[in-house]
Amino acid sequence: MIGTRDSITELVATRQWDQLREALLPLHPSDIADIIIEHPTETEGIIFRLLPKEKAARVFSYLPAAEQRQLLEALSNEQVRRLLDEMTPDDRTRLLEEMPAEVTRELLLKLDPRELEAARKLLGYPENTAGRYMTPEYAWIYPDMTAARALAKIRETGRGKETLNWVYVIDAGGKLVEDVRLANLVLANADAHVLEIDDPEVVSVRATDDRDAVLKAFAKYDRTALPVTDDHGYLLGIITADDVLDIAEQRATEDIQRLGGSEALGASYLDVSVGTMLRKRGGWLAALFIGEMLTATAMGFFEAEIARAVVLALFVPLIISSGGNSGSQATSLIIRALALRELRLQDWWRVFGREILAGVALGAFLGSIGFLRIVLWQHLHFTDYGPHYVLVAVTVFGALIGVVSFGTLTGSMLPFVLRRLGFDPATASAPFVATLVDVTGLCIYFGIALLVLRGTLL
Amino acid sequence: MIGTRDSITELVATRQWDQLREALLPLHPSDIADIIIEHPTETEGIIFRLLPKEKAARVFSYLPAAEQRQLLEALSNEQVRRLLDEMTPDDRTRLLEEMPAEVTRELLLKLDPRELEAARKLLGYPENTAGRYMTPEYAWIYPDMTAARALAKIRETGRGKETLNWVYVIDAGGKLVEDVRLANLVLANADAHVLEIDDPEVVSVRATDDRDAVLKAFAKYDRTALPVTDDHGYLLGIITADDVLDIAEQRATEDIQRLGGSEALGASYLDVSVGTMLRKRGGWLAALFIGEMLTATAMGFFEAEIARAVVLALFVPLIISSGGNSGSQATSLIIRALALRELRLQDWWRVFGREILAGVALGAFLGSIGFLRIVLWQHLHFTDYGPHYVLVAVTVFGALIGVVSFGTLTGSMLPFVLRRLGFDPATASAPFVATLVDVTGLCIYFGIALLVLRGTLL
Repeated sequence: MIGTRDSITELVATRQWDQLREALLPLHPSDIADIIIEHPTETEGIIFRLLPKEKAARVFSYLPAAEQRQLLEALSNEQVRRLLDEMTPDDRTRLLEEMPAEVTRELLLKLDPRELEAARKLLGYPENTAGRYMTPEYAWIYPDMTAARALAKIRETGRGKETLNWVYVIDAGGKLVEDVRLANLVLANADAHVLEIDDPEVVSVRATDDRDAVLKAFAKYDRTALPVTDDHGYLLGIITADDVLDIAEQRATEDIQRLGGSEALGASYLDVSVGTMLRKRGGWLAALFIGEMLTATAMGFFEAEIARAVVLALFVPLIISSGGNSGSQATSLIIRALALRELRLQDWWRVFGREILAGVALGAFLGSIGFLRIVLWQHLHFTDYGPHYVLVAVTVFGALIGVVSFGTLTGSMLPFVLRRLGFDPATASAPFVATLVDVTGLCIYFGIALLVLRGTLL
Repeated sequence: MIGTRDSITELVATRQWDQLREALLPLHPSDIADIIIEHPTETEGIIFRLLPKEKAARVFSYLPAAEQRQLLEALSNEQVRRLLDEMTPDDRTRLLEEMPAEVTRELLLKLDPRELEAARKLLGYPENTAGRYMTPEYAWIYPDMTAARALAKIRETGRGKETLNWVYVIDAGGKLVEDVRLANLVLANADAHVLEIDDPEVVSVRATDDRDAVLKAFAKYDRTALPVTDDHGYLLGIITADDVLDIAEQRATEDIQRLGGSEALGASYLDVSVGTMLRKRGGWLAALFIGEMLTATAMGFFEAEIARAVVLALFVPLIISSGGNSGSQATSLIIRALALRELRLQDWWRVFGREILAGVALGAFLGSIGFLRIVLWQHLHFTDYGPHYVLVAVTVFGALIGVVSFGTLTGSMLPFVLRRLGFDPATASAPFVATLVDVTGLCIYFGIALLVLRGTLL
C-alpha cells in the first residue's frame, strides 16, 4: 500500500494521467479516498476526475465532510449532478445533512427529479429515526412466486440494489409479507413457493422508531438487514448492517462525550471548528460552574469552623473528590447498562440495594486508608495535625463513608431519574454528578466534624 | 406479544404440553428466550425440552449467562451434549468463555470430538483477537469454477453455514484467493468464471489482529462478513456483521466504564456479583484516593496562608472542580476520537494547539463569571469577603484561567501519552485526570493568591 501511494504521488508529479488512471483502477474506493485526503486540493480534483463515475461516487462517500465540500467546489455543476445521481440514497442523505443549509439547497436542485424525491423522502423523518437510515434500494418479490421465478426476477431487477442478501416479499398493495434470505432462495427447490421456504419469521422496524430501537432489533435478531415499514405495514425501505455499525458507534460517541460533560460534538474532533467546540463545551462547563458556586456558599457557612480549625480545610479536596469519583464510577456503569437495555427503569430498586452496599463498603475502605494516613503521618512527624489528630482522623473516616455512599447512590440513581423524566440518562455526566456530590459532601464533612470535634477543636 | 405470553403462562399452569409446543413453534428464538427468562427455573427446563433441538440451541444462545448456567444444571448430560453440538461454534466459544473454568472443562468433555476441535481452535487465540470471533462455518468454492458450478456446490454444501452472503474462493492448498457475494454469483452469467465476476477486491483480517483492527476493517469496507486468515494467507474462518456489532458495543462499554474510573466489568451490571464489582471499582478508587492525598499535602503547604486568609479556602472546591470538569471534557473527546481512529498519534500537536486555545477561552469565560459572582455578592451584601474583595475576585479569575487551561491540556494530552507508552488511552479516566489536575490546581490557585494578595491579605 505504501509503495502504491508513493508511485501515485510520482505519477501526479509527472502528470502521467493515463498511467495514473490505470494505477487507481484496482484500488478499493476507501483506499483511493485515503490517497485523495493526502494530496493538496488541486490534485484531488484531478485524481477524482480520472475515476469511472460509479467508482467516483463510492470514493466520494468515503471522504470526510470537509474534503467533500472542497471537492464539490472544485467540480463543475454537471459533474456534481452526475456524482449525486451515482451515490446511494443513504450516502446522499448523509452528505446533504452535513452540508450547510444553503449548500444543501443548491445540491438538491442539481439532483435528478426521481433522485430528489428519494432524498427528500429520506429527509422527511426526524433525526435519529429509522426513516433517516433506510435506503429504498431493496429487491422485492411477490408471495405467489416460486423460488425459480423469484430468482429470475432478482436477476432482472437486482443490479445496483444496496443489498440482495435479503429479499422482501410484498403483496400487490406494497405491504410487507415476509423476508427471505437470498441464500435460502438459492438452496430451495426451484418450484417451492417463496412463502413455504423455511426461513426465520419477518422482523421489521417502523420508520418512526428511534435509534435505540433499531440497534436493539439488530442486536436481538442477528440480521444483516431489516425492513422499515410505516405504521400500516407498508414497506418503505431497508436498513443494512453496515449502517447499524455506524449508528452504534455514533451513539456510543455521543454517550461518551456527554458523560465527559460536554454536548455531543456531532462530527469528528478535528472537523469541528474551535468556535463550535467552545460553544458545546462552554455551555455545560458554565452550568456546572454555577452549580459548583454553591460550594463557596457552603464553605462560607462553615467559615467560622475553618477559621477555628484550619486543619479541616486541608482534607476538603480529598473528601469531595472521593465523592465525585465514586459517583462518576456508578453513573457511567448505570448509563451504559441502561443504553444497552441490560437495566430497565423498574430495576432501580435492585440497583439501589447493590449501590448502598457498594457505597458503604467502598467508603469504609477509603476511610480506613485516610484514617491510617493521618495517624501515620502524625507518628512519622511528616505533618502536625495537632493534639486531637485522632479525632480528625475519625472525622475523615466518617466523612468518607458518608460522602462515598452518597456519591455512589446519587451517581446510580440520577440516570434512572433522568430517564423517568424523559431525558437521556447520559445527561447525568460524571462532572454533573460530581457537582451535585461536592456541595452535599461538604455538608456531610463539616456536619460530622461538628459532631466529633465539638468541645475539642470546635 | 403480551397476549401470546399470557396464553403461554396459562398453558404452563394447566400443563397442556402439546398445545404449548404448538404455541412456541412460530415464535422467534429471542422471543422464546424472553419467555423462558420470565418463568421460574423448573418451568424453564420444561419449556426448553419442548423445543426442536436446533431451535433449542438458538434459544439457548439468546439467554443471559446466569440463565444458561441454571439450565445446564437442569438438563441431563445427553441433553447438554446435543445442545452444544447444535450451537454455532462462535456462540459455543462465548458460552465456554463465560462459564467458570471447571464447568467449561466438563462441557468440553461432552462435545463431539469434531466440535471439540473447532471450539478449542477458536479458543486458542488471545482474547479480543479476530481468531476468537471467527466461525469456521463458511461456504467455499474453487477458482476454476463457473458461476453455475459454484451455485451447485453451494446448494450441496451450504446448509447450516453461518452465512452464505459471501462465498470464499480458495485454491487447492486452502489459501484465500477472492471473496464473492452470493448475490453476484446469482446475477452473473451461468458460464462466467467466478474470478471474472465483477466484485470488490477481497479484504481480510488476520487471526491475530486485535478488536480495533477488526472494527476498523468492517467500518472501512462496509461488508457483512470478512474472512480471517493466518499469516500465510490460509483461510481459517469468517467474522460476521452481527458479531461485529457485539464487538463494537462491548468495546464502547469498556471505554465508558473505564472513563468513569472503574475497571471494565466484563459482564452486564446485574450479572456481576457485588464482590467482583467492589474489587473492580475499589482498586481504581483507592489508587485515585492515594493520588488525591497529595492535595492534603499541598493544602498543608499553604496552611499558614489559609489561616491568615480563610476566605481563600472558600473557593478551593470551586476552582479545583472547574479544572477537573474541563479535563474530563477534553479527555473523553480525545479518547473517543482515538478509539474511532479519527485522531492518530502524530496529531497530538494539532490537538495541543486547539486545546490551549479552548482552555484559555473557557478559563477566561468561567473566570469572568466567578469574578462577577464575588463582586456582586459583596455589593448585594450576601456575603462579606472583606475590604480586599476585588483582589480576591482577581485571584479567582486568574486561577480559573490557569486551572482550566491546565485541566484541558492534561485531559487532552494524557490519552496520547498513554497510547504512546503502549497503554489503552481509555485508562485516562475522568477521575484520573481530575486527580492530576486537583493537586496542580491548588498550587496554581495559591501561587496566584500569593502574587495578587501579597501585602494585603497575605
